[in-house]
Amino acid sequence: MNMKIYFDNNATTKCDENVVNAMLPYFTEEYGNPSSTYSFGKEIKDEITKARRNIAKLLNADENEIIFTSCASESNVTAIMNAVNNNPNKKHIITTKVEHASIMETMKKLETKGYEITYLSVDEKGRINIEELKKSIKKDTILICVMMANNEIGNIYPIKEIGKIAKESNILFHCDAVQAVGKIKIDVKDMNIDTLSLSGHKIHAPKGIGVLYVNKEIQFSQLIFGHQEKNRRGGTENVPYIIGLGKAVQNLLEDNYKTNEKIKNLRDKLETQIKNNIEDTIIYGDLENRLPNTSNIAFKGVNGEEILLMLESFNIYVSTGSACNSEMTEPSHVLTACNADLNNYSPIRISLGKDNTEEEVEVFVQKLTNIINMLRKKSKMMGENK
Amino acid sequence: MNMKIYFDNNATTKCDENVVNAMLPYFTEEYGNPSSTYSFGKEIKDEITKARRNIAKLLNADENEIIFTSCASESNVTAIMNAVNNNPNKKHIITTKVEHASIMETMKKLETKGYEITYLSVDEKGRINIEELKKSIKKDTILICVMMANNEIGNIYPIKEIGKIAKESNILFHCDAVQAVGKIKIDVKDMNIDTLSLSGHKIHAPKGIGVLYVNKEIQFSQLIFGHQEKNRRGGTENVPYIIGLGKAVQNLLEDNYKTNEKIKNLRDKLETQIKNNIEDTIIYGDLENRLPNTSNIAFKGVNGEEILLMLESFNIYVSTGSACNSEMTEPSHVLTACNADLNNYSPIRISLGKDNTEEEVEVFVQKLTNIINMLRKKSKMMGENK
Repeated sequence: MNMKIYFDNNATTKCDENVVNAMLPYFTEEYGNPSSTYSFGKEIKDEITKARRNIAKLLNADENEIIFTSCASESNVTAIMNAVNNNPNKKHIITTKVEHASIMETMKKLETKGYEITYLSVDEKGRINIEELKKSIKKDTILICVMMANNEIGNIYPIKEIGKIAKESNILFHCDAVQAVGKIKIDVKDMNIDTLSLSGHKIHAPKGIGVLYVNKEIQFSQLIFGHQEKNRRGGTENVPYIIGLGKAVQNLLEDNYKTNEKIKNLRDKLETQIKNNIEDTIIYGDLENRLPNTSNIAFKGVNGEEILLMLESFNIYVSTGSACNSEMTEPSHVLTACNADLNNYSPIRISLGKDNTEEEVEVFVQKLTNIINMLRKKSKMMGENK
Repeated sequence: MNMKIYFDNNATTKCDENVVNAMLPYFTEEYGNPSSTYSFGKEIKDEITKARRNIAKLLNADENEIIFTSCASESNVTAIMNAVNNNPNKKHIITTKVEHASIMETMKKLETKGYEITYLSVDEKGRINIEELKKSIKKDTILICVMMANNEIGNIYPIKEIGKIAKESNILFHCDAVQAVGKIKIDVKDMNIDTLSLSGHKIHAPKGIGVLYVNKEIQFSQLIFGHQEKNRRGGTENVPYIIGLGKAVQNLLEDNYKTNEKIKNLRDKLETQIKNNIEDTIIYGDLENRLPNTSNIAFKGVNGEEILLMLESFNIYVSTGSACNSEMTEPSHVLTACNADLNNYSPIRISLGKDNTEEEVEVFVQKLTNIINMLRKKSKMMGENK
């Protein structure tokens, strides 16, 4: 029973073996600086171009619209600050209450500098209201910033519809697609996305590499100054990780979303079994329009943190929300925005990946059932002893 | 004769084998998110702390003054923008004409926003004048920004003296120490440095990891928003590279600058042999106060680019200046600032590393001598045929 069950793939994923193998030569053999004039660096440049093409293909973008960054947080901040800096006379941004911390914190900073931010509300299922979005648009709206899929509850947002509205209103549209990449199809042209972020470590490449797609039709000003990435992102290229990300994306292109079917079946099976085994269960989010791998689930009267700790003792790893917030004790801003009854239904987030198996799901459900029964019994006993 | 001779260690270095080995487990085994609440992430956190301590020790900083970034360019931009953003009423910055592109480009951007930048001149040896620095200080000077050592000519700047002046004038002091780290001793406290940048890939760690030291006594506002690095740098931690950088710095601490003696002897031998073999040779920079590994050398009437290409045909790699500028045809801003006669003395930069050997130096000098003789002969013949 020493099997590790990793059900926290929205927090981070295991690097693929072929990704690691693709990177390895670039640490100690092909270690030249790609910006060097000699061929030792130039061959590396060709490999970087291949990686860039894979990513462009995945997004239906042009190769020269792909900028390598160090992470999606950098991409998000760059995109927002780019919109702001290129529109100095406008002061309004529309986003949602359920964005990632890197977006939320940037917005908060902009508020201190005199910007007005509209945070679109969500309903109890975490859905935004397109009419509210339309009504929020002002003459000086610079940017609409809506994530493609939510990291905690898995909701998929109506990006194509939002892109159309942004385009018609001549407003920039930034989309944080970190959780969507590889799980749902992305077409930046069809979706009218101006800037889009993605992260390597959510798709089996390493932590520390991201991408910012920038529509070639829009103005762009860099956040990290320097000559690399065609004067769009300074800093010597992270050659191994760029090539690793290229490989991870090639894996996705070859799989062509087939594995997501398997993952969805596993997730659905997991939820059905849990609901059959455990009463008073709530699944958060928009069940009709969710990522195939995510389940945000709560059990009446049982604290998610306690479940997580018990599961951990069996080498089973889930989370209670966004992994980016472990040092904070605040409740999830996403579920708070959904007006969730977190006192009675404090959730765990289960996020499956391509390496997970039916056997793992069965072991998980069995352990979880025992844990919930035990915690509820304990809680009842303590209540009776009061 | 298929030996590769890599003499471009100021551009980038080969990853150490023990650095790669230290990183490997964190791609496919210990791949948890360090921000997760469960132990799978927490053990990783301990390793990150160890790396942070090594770096703090190298700089004589406190552990909590070390922020991991994606590269020195990011560190440089973060430090400058931090100084600017925390002093909104002041508009003057002092830097030099010989800084790295990430600094120069940030300064240019600030000029477009109404900031006044004083670029300290250098003499023909690339030295700055401390009196000029003192005279440049104004009431609204925010920041002095001077590199510790120059990447092209290797000059070491009087950082302790500058730090003292900055402190006495109550001005922030940022130091780009990318080329200095591992080559000369750094003590941020003794040198009164407020912010300092370093890069992994110059010290045998990978490309894509940097550090920003921030004096705990100064205000700090982040460039990439998010909760990681104690709310100072967003983005999931690049666990493998942080641990790799920690190992590379441990290697430096264990070596305790001993290898630099060997490198300096090699460099001096190389220069002596070149001067003995080839007449009309100039060595750029401050020969009395240079990095131990760098030689920026020119041969009358011979173009550096041509030398580089010929050397490359023998698998020998040097550069003509900063590797960050290969796509630009402009002459070196550093040597231009030195008022160098680049028409007649167009240089190559030789930058040695710990893996270079006496044998390599001998092969190099022999090949270089032949190349210079051949190019000069060719040039003479073409002159006679005019």
